[in-house]
Amino acid sequence: MIKGNLLYGQSGGPTAVINASLYGVIKEAMNSNEIDKVYGAIHGIDGILNEKFYDFNSNQEEIEKLPYTPGAFLGSVRHRLKDYEKDESEYIKILEVFKKYNIRYFFYNGGNDSMDTCNKISKYLSLKNYECKVIGIPKTIDNDLPLVSHTPGYGSAAKYLINTIMELVLDTNVYKKGRVTIVEVMGRDTGWLTASSVVAKAKLGKPHLIYVPERAFNMDVFLKNINDIYQKEHKVFVVVSEGIRDKNGKEVGASDDLDAFGHVQMGGVANYLANIVKNKLGISTRSIEINLLQRCAGHYASKTDVNEAIEVGRHAVSFALAGESDIMVGINVKSYQNYEVEYIKVPLGDVANKIKYLDDKYIASDSMISSEFLSYVLPLIKGENEVKYDEDGVIDFAKR
Amino acid sequence: MIKGNLLYGQSGGPTAVINASLYGVIKEAMNSNEIDKVYGAIHGIDGILNEKFYDFNSNQEEIEKLPYTPGAFLGSVRHRLKDYEKDESEYIKILEVFKKYNIRYFFYNGGNDSMDTCNKISKYLSLKNYECKVIGIPKTIDNDLPLVSHTPGYGSAAKYLINTIMELVLDTNVYKKGRVTIVEVMGRDTGWLTASSVVAKAKLGKPHLIYVPERAFNMDVFLKNINDIYQKEHKVFVVVSEGIRDKNGKEVGASDDLDAFGHVQMGGVANYLANIVKNKLGISTRSIEINLLQRCAGHYASKTDVNEAIEVGRHAVSFALAGESDIMVGINVKSYQNYEVEYIKVPLGDVANKIKYLDDKYIASDSMISSEFLSYVLPLIKGENEVKYDEDGVIDFAKR
Repeated sequence: MIKGNLLYGQSGGPTAVINASLYGVIKEAMNSNEIDKVYGAIHGIDGILNEKFYDFNSNQEEIEKLPYTPGAFLGSVRHRLKDYEKDESEYIKILEVFKKYNIRYFFYNGGNDSMDTCNKISKYLSLKNYECKVIGIPKTIDNDLPLVSHTPGYGSAAKYLINTIMELVLDTNVYKKGRVTIVEVMGRDTGWLTASSVVAKAKLGKPHLIYVPERAFNMDVFLKNINDIYQKEHKVFVVVSEGIRDKNGKEVGASDDLDAFGHVQMGGVANYLANIVKNKLGISTRSIEINLLQRCAGHYASKTDVNEAIEVGRHAVSFALAGESDIMVGINVKSYQNYEVEYIKVPLGDVANKIKYLDDKYIASDSMISSEFLSYVLPLIKGENEVKYDEDGVIDFAKR
Repeated sequence: MIKGNLLYGQSGGPTAVINASLYGVIKEAMNSNEIDKVYGAIHGIDGILNEKFYDFNSNQEEIEKLPYTPGAFLGSVRHRLKDYEKDESEYIKILEVFKKYNIRYFFYNGGNDSMDTCNKISKYLSLKNYECKVIGIPKTIDNDLPLVSHTPGYGSAAKYLINTIMELVLDTNVYKKGRVTIVEVMGRDTGWLTASSVVAKAKLGKPHLIYVPERAFNMDVFLKNINDIYQKEHKVFVVVSEGIRDKNGKEVGASDDLDAFGHVQMGGVANYLANIVKNKLGISTRSIEINLLQRCAGHYASKTDVNEAIEVGRHAVSFALAGESDIMVGINVKSYQNYEVEYIKVPLGDVANKIKYLDDKYIASDSMISSEFLSYVLPLIKGENEVKYDEDGVIDFAKR
């Protein structure tokens, strides 16, 4: 295997465990004879184009904190590479930088957009006969990558979300006064994360209604559902994906609805629905947007997810050292009953820009997830990750 | 000491540790010879007026789960008793119920409004020569009760908030793109909880700006501050109390600002400020309302706070058995350096309806908290509470 340096970049929205994959990469790489230095690209592709690298070999003290530090330690980016047939300029620069730093291992950690970037770079380097092992490392709380059982980051987001929904159910149960609580969960295209709230229903009987983007949202049916439950129970608990759409594919409460001043209305779909319930049904409402909290709750990450994220990073290195390239490392669950996983190789071209939707069997109705989903999601949230505290009792997160 | 039964009620907004105080009361009461049964009033005063009681003696299995279960286990209420000189009817009913159930110990767990209720009942029972030990048990994430160092519930809310702000700082740091993030924290009248975010500043250098209700908010200065920081750093992080007011005492972004349809605008002050920053400065913004999550995060409660909440409950019983009545149990910190507390008796009449504002020494400027506040708040957030998990890896919360 060719000797050289490893370059690792992070891309897209961060998760609670993306740095755990970085940790796995560093640990495995530092054990190898073929890999000399481990560089981190600051802000992904941007860092490569501008030669802004972080050298882990000279900054070892922060490495041990990575497995519980959320956010992208190296900085992230949303930079879409053009096709090299159309505009080669950025590719030429990338190749030049790779040669200058003798990068022979390039790992890119991200979601489906980032796998597209990774795929394009991989194909371009091959075309130019530059030997470099290119491996994609998945991460996304959306869990929407194809050809894998699930993605690193999802289990921790689901764990935090499930528990938060349960705590909110307990909190909103306390008053006699009737109220509709609508919680908004991330997921522009798919309902994987929102679906996990069915665990709270199994444990505490709520949420009453769960809406995912995989089913068209009907406002009239929604209002009827709310009213029916309200008449019986007085307190209604709803969880909704940020990306729900009506039957014409239009996002519900889309931000192109301007206010009276022509300003884009901020606040998402939960706020929008709460206003409609309040004004049409005259019922007191509260909207809660979990917002960024669901993707950065390092303090309550799933141990299973963190371990898998580390392993995905380790396997990226071992696959590359075994000569593999042009692949993404994936997690495949061999058994859900006696939870067991294996790490697989998925061709980058098969995941780039593709979306995996929630299976039909997991959707019980337009407003509820099936209990079958429990056996899918419960193993992924098991165990509490360990974090280290400083002398003040505050989590000692890694700092760049 | 007179033999009889104990009645306990919860009132006002719940916290992560209100049920820990209930736990302390039950444990201490069940150890005594004078107290026979421990009843819980369902929905506080409402439960007394309607004779809806929960009998802990016949439901012991859930008791051990109370110290980590958020929300008010017995249900809460916002019911203001009229002065008995003006309308005695509810008092007559309460006395009747107390006699019927031989209630000789009455404990009411809440904030300053609830201490008013407790005080009125105490005075009325004395007036009618009905022997009953009446004790107030404090709880509020707002930390705004006078004559005590702090209140149960505050430390856990602060712990969760500090860590959440840190995680959000890490998450919002990842992109190169400039953005203003505005986080809204509970606190209608006081800035105690918001002030705790200065710990994140000490650890990670952000938030840049912290606004509390104790200082008048000036929109022009705010926009100038934002713009100055944005020009230098591109990413601005702001924490703001929900109750900030302008120099005329008007709440900023108050919900009496109607939209074009005459509807009350939902969404709080952070959303309001983010819209103004976006429209006036043309800067990308994100508003995050921590919402109910900050008062119900049982999974990340402060061990110190939970232990103190239990002790406050225990002391309510021991004080009552020692003949005390008409008091609230308070926490007094004897030393912050070698953190040590004592449990004190505060006359109910001295806390009812009173508000303790953030000390001047803790406010560095109109938009920042002083580092002196660190030595106040850090001891209160120390230690992680233990929670129990069920076979699915989900927290096994107490259910009524």
